[in-house]
Amino acid sequence: MTEISLDRGRRVLSEQPFSVLIGSQLEKLDDRGVELSLGLRPDHLQQHGFAHGGVVSYLADNALTYAGGTVLGDSVTLEFKINYVRPAIGEKLIARAHVKAYGKSQAVCDCDVYALKDGAEKLCATAQGTIWKVGP
Amino acid sequence: MTEISLDRGRRVLSEQPFSVLIGSQLEKLDDRGVELSLGLRPDHLQQHGFAHGGVVSYLADNALTYAGGTVLGDSVTLEFKINYVRPAIGEKLIARAHVKAYGKSQAVCDCDVYALKDGAEKLCATAQGTIWKVGP
Amino acid sequence: MTEISLDRGRRVLSEQPFSVLIGSQLEKLDDRGVELSLGLRPDHLQQHGFAHGGVVSYLADNALTYAGGTVLGDSVTLEFKINYVRPAIGEKLIARAHVKAYGKSQAVCDCDVYALKDGAEKLCATAQGTIWKVGP
Amino acid sequence: MTEISLDRGRRVLSEQPFSVLIGSQLEKLDDRGVELSLGLRPDHLQQHGFAHGGVVSYLADNALTYAGGTVLGDSVTLEFKINYVRPAIGEKLIARAHVKAYGKSQAVCDCDVYALKDGAEKLCATAQGTIWKVGP
Repeated sequence: MTEISLDRGRRVLSEQPFSVLIGSQLEKLDDRGVELSLGLRPDHLQQHGFAHGGVVSYLADNALTYAGGTVLGDSVTLEFKINYVRPAIGEKLIARAHVKAYGKSQAVCDCDVYALKDGAEKLCATAQGTIWKVGP
Repeated sequence: MTEISLDRGRRVLSEQPFSVLIGSQLEKLDDRGVELSLGLRPDHLQQHGFAHGGVVSYLADNALTYAGGTVLGDSVTLEFKINYVRPAIGEKLIARAHVKAYGKSQAVCDCDVYALKDGAEKLCATAQGTIWKVGP
Repeated sequence: MTEISLDRGRRVLSEQPFSVLIGSQLEKLDDRGVELSLGLRPDHLQQHGFAHGGVVSYLADNALTYAGGTVLGDSVTLEFKINYVRPAIGEKLIARAHVKAYGKSQAVCDCDVYALKDGAEKLCATAQGTIWKVGP
Repeated sequence: MTEISLDRGRRVLSEQPFSVLIGSQLEKLDDRGVELSLGLRPDHLQQHGFAHGGVVSYLADNALTYAGGTVLGDSVTLEFKINYVRPAIGEKLIARAHVKAYGKSQAVCDCDVYALKDGAEKLCATAQGTIWKVGP
């Protein structure tokens, strides 16, 4: 059992105007981690036709927060680091994040972002961050 | 003199559909650094009424790339790290990035993101990243 | 087959005076990653009796470089980020690093550092970094 | 006035066996930041004759913790990120760290590490990290 349910997670996402603007979807949330996806649209791209780094980092950041939320409840990203490892090209981006370690007030999580193209997933970014519990 | 001009920088920004969607503006670009701003709109926010972390990190990431571009020319962000230090509340976000060190193929840059509210700027995030030269 | 062998890796370690001072050992090096260990001595500690953060980060940094070396050959750490997640207490530290993605000139690697105490391993730090090929 | 004095800072350093092994010196500590230095010895080097990355990151990590300590009192480094920007060659390394932002329980600090050679300082690494208050 996690501190937040998939339903609660989806409700939070629908209450984030920026997430609605971007169009991300919370696919999974359980005690092993979370999966956040994004169907790529033309307005997600940069000048070379790849998903903009800001789209990829948005997805990683949000997935890290959700992963931390599974053990902390309501929480925010304190900090994170991301490496872009390959141009993000395809129909869809999928961010998978997990908790690596946690205490009462914080969790350290990692996240891999994959680009799905023609049925194959390729790693396009990897991130690590610290999530911070907020509220009671 | 920098490797890219303010005009060229603005043209690149206008060619990034995601930057157009978000609405960022390249305010300054010279040999001392860059300034990228964003007038905050309701669809930039998260569920608590602050600018979404993804908006702040987009701005930092893009400003870091532009800073690197001033010494490298066409370039991309290889990786970066960001600390969110205060909720981003106000009328406008301003990201200021500078080159700390650089060689032929890469630059290390830092960036502070400020929220402008009622005429006062407050630091809301700070970032450090590696920028990578692309193309000839 | 990797770009460097375990023997070559150990020789490099023995040529690093600081690694000799600290006393680290290269345990494994193959195409799946590397393992670097350190038998903890009193002079590795900080004021509370835990391994000093500098010892833990030394081990993570060096393991990341070796992991990158398995695909790049001679290489250096360009940058890395580390989260300390638990006090490093025990007889031995073990850093395990792997390549997550790589190209011609760089590799992105991650590393977990465990403390071995009374036969049980506990994660005490996790790191992610960029490794850079040097030389021909 | 800071939460810890230069005298208290030096006493803590002298109680860290690993810092004694390495030989670092706390030069300054005031409300504007800290300066930690290290006279380079042969056993601080790696195989190419530069200061080992582990020495540089030790210095950055410790300076970041001291900087955080000036506003938080007793504290530890939660996480940090470092970019190595130039081989660390010379007689002495000097790490200067400052607080960028802080709250009740944590501080975000940055640190530049310089190598002093023939009277000239050159930046060899730059770091950013999160410091965490411990104890009452």
